[in-house]
Amino acid sequence: MKKNISKFIVFCAFLVMQNLPILASTTTALNLMPAPREIMVINSAGFRLDDGFSTALEGHADARLSKAVTRMLRRLSGRTGLFFPQDYITAKSNPETPQMIIRASRTGDLLVGEDESYQLTITENQITLEAGTDIGALRGMETFLQLLSVDEKGYYFPAIVINDAPRFPWRGLLIDVSRHFMPVEVIKRNLDGMAAVKMNVLHWHLTDDQGFRVECQSWPKLHEMGSDGFYYTREQIKEIIAYAADRGIRIMPEFDVPAHATSWLVAYPELGSTPGPYSPERRWGIKDPTMDPTKEFTYEFLDKFFAEMAALFPDEYFHIGGDENNGSHWNANKQIQQFMQDNNIPDNHALQAHFNKRILQILTKYNKKMIGWDEIFQPTLPTDIIIHSWRGTESLVKSAQQGYMGILSNGYYIDLIQPAEYHYLNDPIPANTTMSEDEQNRILGGEATSWGELVTPETVDSRIWPRTAAIAERLWSSQSCNDVEDMYRRLEVISLRLEELGLTHIKNYDMMLRRLSNNQIITPLKTFVDVVEPVKKYERHHQGITYTSYSPYTRVVDAARPESMTARRFNQLADQFIESPTPAAAQELTDLLEIWKNNHASLKPIIAKSPILQEIETMSADLQELAVTGLVAVRAYRKHKNLSKKQIESARALLEKAKKPRGQVELMVVDSIEKLVQAAMNKNK
Amino acid sequence: MKKNISKFIVFCAFLVMQNLPILASTTTALNLMPAPREIMVINSAGFRLDDGFSTALEGHADARLSKAVTRMLRRLSGRTGLFFPQDYITAKSNPETPQMIIRASRTGDLLVGEDESYQLTITENQITLEAGTDIGALRGMETFLQLLSVDEKGYYFPAIVINDAPRFPWRGLLIDVSRHFMPVEVIKRNLDGMAAVKMNVLHWHLTDDQGFRVECQSWPKLHEMGSDGFYYTREQIKEIIAYAADRGIRIMPEFDVPAHATSWLVAYPELGSTPGPYSPERRWGIKDPTMDPTKEFTYEFLDKFFAEMAALFPDEYFHIGGDENNGSHWNANKQIQQFMQDNNIPDNHALQAHFNKRILQILTKYNKKMIGWDEIFQPTLPTDIIIHSWRGTESLVKSAQQGYMGILSNGYYIDLIQPAEYHYLNDPIPANTTMSEDEQNRILGGEATSWGELVTPETVDSRIWPRTAAIAERLWSSQSCNDVEDMYRRLEVISLRLEELGLTHIKNYDMMLRRLSNNQIITPLKTFVDVVEPVKKYERHHQGITYTSYSPYTRVVDAARPESMTARRFNQLADQFIESPTPAAAQELTDLLEIWKNNHASLKPIIAKSPILQEIETMSADLQELAVTGLVAVRAYRKHKNLSKKQIESARALLEKAKKPRGQVELMVVDSIEKLVQAAMNKNK
Repeated sequence: MKKNISKFIVFCAFLVMQNLPILASTTTALNLMPAPREIMVINSAGFRLDDGFSTALEGHADARLSKAVTRMLRRLSGRTGLFFPQDYITAKSNPETPQMIIRASRTGDLLVGEDESYQLTITENQITLEAGTDIGALRGMETFLQLLSVDEKGYYFPAIVINDAPRFPWRGLLIDVSRHFMPVEVIKRNLDGMAAVKMNVLHWHLTDDQGFRVECQSWPKLHEMGSDGFYYTREQIKEIIAYAADRGIRIMPEFDVPAHATSWLVAYPELGSTPGPYSPERRWGIKDPTMDPTKEFTYEFLDKFFAEMAALFPDEYFHIGGDENNGSHWNANKQIQQFMQDNNIPDNHALQAHFNKRILQILTKYNKKMIGWDEIFQPTLPTDIIIHSWRGTESLVKSAQQGYMGILSNGYYIDLIQPAEYHYLNDPIPANTTMSEDEQNRILGGEATSWGELVTPETVDSRIWPRTAAIAERLWSSQSCNDVEDMYRRLEVISLRLEELGLTHIKNYDMMLRRLSNNQIITPLKTFVDVVEPVKKYERHHQGITYTSYSPYTRVVDAARPESMTARRFNQLADQFIESPTPAAAQELTDLLEIWKNNHASLKPIIAKSPILQEIETMSADLQELAVTGLVAVRAYRKHKNLSKKQIESARALLEKAKKPRGQVELMVVDSIEKLVQAAMNKNK
Repeated sequence: MKKNISKFIVFCAFLVMQNLPILASTTTALNLMPAPREIMVINSAGFRLDDGFSTALEGHADARLSKAVTRMLRRLSGRTGLFFPQDYITAKSNPETPQMIIRASRTGDLLVGEDESYQLTITENQITLEAGTDIGALRGMETFLQLLSVDEKGYYFPAIVINDAPRFPWRGLLIDVSRHFMPVEVIKRNLDGMAAVKMNVLHWHLTDDQGFRVECQSWPKLHEMGSDGFYYTREQIKEIIAYAADRGIRIMPEFDVPAHATSWLVAYPELGSTPGPYSPERRWGIKDPTMDPTKEFTYEFLDKFFAEMAALFPDEYFHIGGDENNGSHWNANKQIQQFMQDNNIPDNHALQAHFNKRILQILTKYNKKMIGWDEIFQPTLPTDIIIHSWRGTESLVKSAQQGYMGILSNGYYIDLIQPAEYHYLNDPIPANTTMSEDEQNRILGGEATSWGELVTPETVDSRIWPRTAAIAERLWSSQSCNDVEDMYRRLEVISLRLEELGLTHIKNYDMMLRRLSNNQIITPLKTFVDVVEPVKKYERHHQGITYTSYSPYTRVVDAARPESMTARRFNQLADQFIESPTPAAAQELTDLLEIWKNNHASLKPIIAKSPILQEIETMSADLQELAVTGLVAVRAYRKHKNLSKKQIESARALLEKAKKPRGQVELMVVDSIEKLVQAAMNKNK
């Protein structure tokens, strides 16, 4: 069958294929993310999808696979409106002449390094998905769904062979549910999103100063007093673990000790390094309350605690946090100081090491392996622990060289509100690494971290998606797959596709704008918010507002996207125009600038009727002025006209003013306007 | 304090107040729904809201009230962006000088007829909410939140005294979770929506032919085999009951017997009237499988079943369905026929009455009262049962006259896709009733019914909201409160407010259009879908498509709103224009027509890239032609020009063509275009 067709084997498929004109028509339709390891595009007709589409399960067809195929059919049906004949898929329901065959050799285990590879073959008459495990088949189905294409004849899948497997075995997302509790459905829809981009670990940050989020039978005051009533019941935890397992995703719990522990101490002050009582923490930041590592009670407590949790959470790894212990309560406690002296413990770091060893014993007793943040690292630990690096690749390399496994989160802190590009180019193993192969193999992957101080169930999806899809690609796809423009092109498509799973990252934007505009027309507000971004890093905490767990997270800064695609587009257009000031480039710039020039007049009356918007009023006025200045600069640059001294001075003053954040957002087009002004000035010198 | 202010007592506030010019400036801002019984607008400054806002609980401050006040503060904070000082509210946390005092005399019971009245008093310096029960206070807080207003100085609440209480004690929403399972969060957000419009009963239709949705310990095969894995665990049911109770809402379960029972019989065929086996039902309609009312096993089974469910569901009423038993399996069963002969049971209706009496005994044993659809009515039943009328007011009146209580659903079938106006004007006790006061008192209220055949978790909110808010008003507010235009004015505001509770009726619209347009720009598609509605009543089942539980519900017909507000507006404009063809009226019409005239050109290329849209392509073309025709008619009517014979003929042909549904939607502007053409023809005769 294949003999008359031409073949291409392409690595890091998109970039390379786009450079091959012969394939251009085929490849423009490919919107795969993460990019598969190997794609062979077959130069023949693809598979036409119609309402007769049917699937069959061969090989080892377990319940997980059956359910996953059923979900796949429903998603395909939902997108296409086609009424397929099959309902709930099982191996027993195989039709005689299936159009798609899914074959898995065995049930995959939810263990680090499990086989997730698959091969997907699509021809005109048949689709075959083969995998070593059902988990691999799940990954392949996501690729299959991303391949759905359209031409003048209708829906089809391109003729293709894909051989795929992940680069890293650990591709995680941390969700902090302590700072703001995230209901079950938030976790579920994010698990669906993770599965869609082939991520395989949910790192569930379940406890912190602000909340203890797990029902605990052995120490019930933990959830009763430490959660304000917002916690997962044991049944809900089992439900989520099962939901994740159905999608081939491990759930790794984190119980952060000995610091970040206020919520524990509210319930059981006898665990603490000061007598207490402790009150629920409602503010953010590094706090003092810390467990007392010198009392036997602490370990008895934690032994009983971890015994219960080890039975509840099946994953082989337990994350113990271990970060940001400021030591102040230890320093102030005489018994602790005495203990350190008696036991030759020189400093707090060593005391924490002592604590960690005891925790390790407990975890080992319950057949769990330990993972913790950089701070837990010390060369006497056994080498099956994992170091989770928030500090950076340097510390990761250091521990790998000493024989320890590691995962990277530095560079994947999505709560810092940085662009997808930044995360995308952050490689756990940089190309110029000097590590040996063995050392490299100890780098297991990484995790995006959705810390929860500034997000609520309403906004959290928009902080996670779509940027986390770029991180998912970094961790799944080859190192050489790093074309930023092509990543953004695909990210836009994938972002829209993620909506089908219930994620709210797009739809809650308009909803928040509707509320912000107090039931008025949102168009002018959207035009404005489309070109701002929240202030970066943790700047929001340093601008005169004290945020707490009960603050409103419904302002413009919360609605604004972490990355403005409109601003990105404008900035590209400006660069292109300066490089080559064609009439077409000028026109595109001018169109955008004209919209902004006129927007403030429309937004102002809306702000007047919605006081929550007052904080951005001057910035909206600045956008208008910037647009006027931009238009002048574009015209001057094109026509080689001089800017007057007065124009230059007022442009400088404006740019200075417009750079200042207001309402904790930044206007993302200021730099480009500045470039345009600069270009006009330079050209006419 | 009040001595210098003028007062008005107004019943059915909005209508009357709008007619009082002196109050116009105050009342235009009032967007209360349901309308309170009595409003006294105080002619003085209102209460200014700022970030010092604080509340105190007085009287009987139970946990439900504390949680409700906390939620109220968070919603207010979310809308206004104000950072309030209080976090979790309890009577212990009362500030010294609270700005709002909430006082409830006792904890309300979740019983039919419980006191839900409240009095809300807002002055410049103080807000007081007083109620006989905490449930009344909850109702008052929803009114309070609806009163939030804005002027040039910021947020405020108008100075006002409201005395409010419901007209009917039973204001329900039925959600069918059998035909399509609705996850926990769907139920929760709809409970929030119900609470926002003061509804107080969720009628949970938990079992039907297509699915048995409750975990059952006594007969576990019910959920194991009858649900395809989609059921509520006992823990989830408790969670939802508690969630509803926190909002002053009763949860009444329905277990539909003896028909609508396929899912029971799949699990336990021995209950059935034929030997079985039975397979899961995936199609819609009235089905044959029916329990055998002549076997003792049936009652033993149901006794054990209801014993468990009576303990799980605390409500005093249990709904037993009892509808649409077609009797075919009874007719075909010789033993059943013999039993009827032996016991002098003349027909199937009498046999079902026999069955119902046995069920009543069981329910009574477990301290539950029975409610069922019209079919269960027979004059030998005790008078504490309730008849639930899907047939109409006539049957309701009949049973009330015989001493039975009743609730109405006929006229509130929101799955029939009728306009809000239709439901709004459907009164459980019509103004011209001949019933005595006693008889009238037996009419407890009504229920909107969200039957689940054609809705999914993605679309269900848009079928319930906002139209159900109009039904809520009918059941809460006075009979004389029936100004349709004012209802629509307020409905639009309330609909947007409902989003703050997580309801997806607005935001999923664009999301579905994005998927339908296959990631293209949605504006032209939205312009089109904005003026269509799904075909009415149950027409969707009679147009050549066989729907099942696994069909796609993602097409244009599913995205389309049950009631097109754009079409409604256009139709009003057309009427006004015909009445009085001013240039302004002509301009508004022309503006809309111009948009439609040009829309098809934009939509066509989108359809070409999204085959799911092909089914509406000719209708989009028709809209263009209609717009052209409408423009001609408007011009002719205004300028007294004649339409040519050819123009008239082609308009007639077009109107004929455009009336035909395609893709199971109807164009809602055809009649108005026809009116315009007719007007132009008549005028120039």
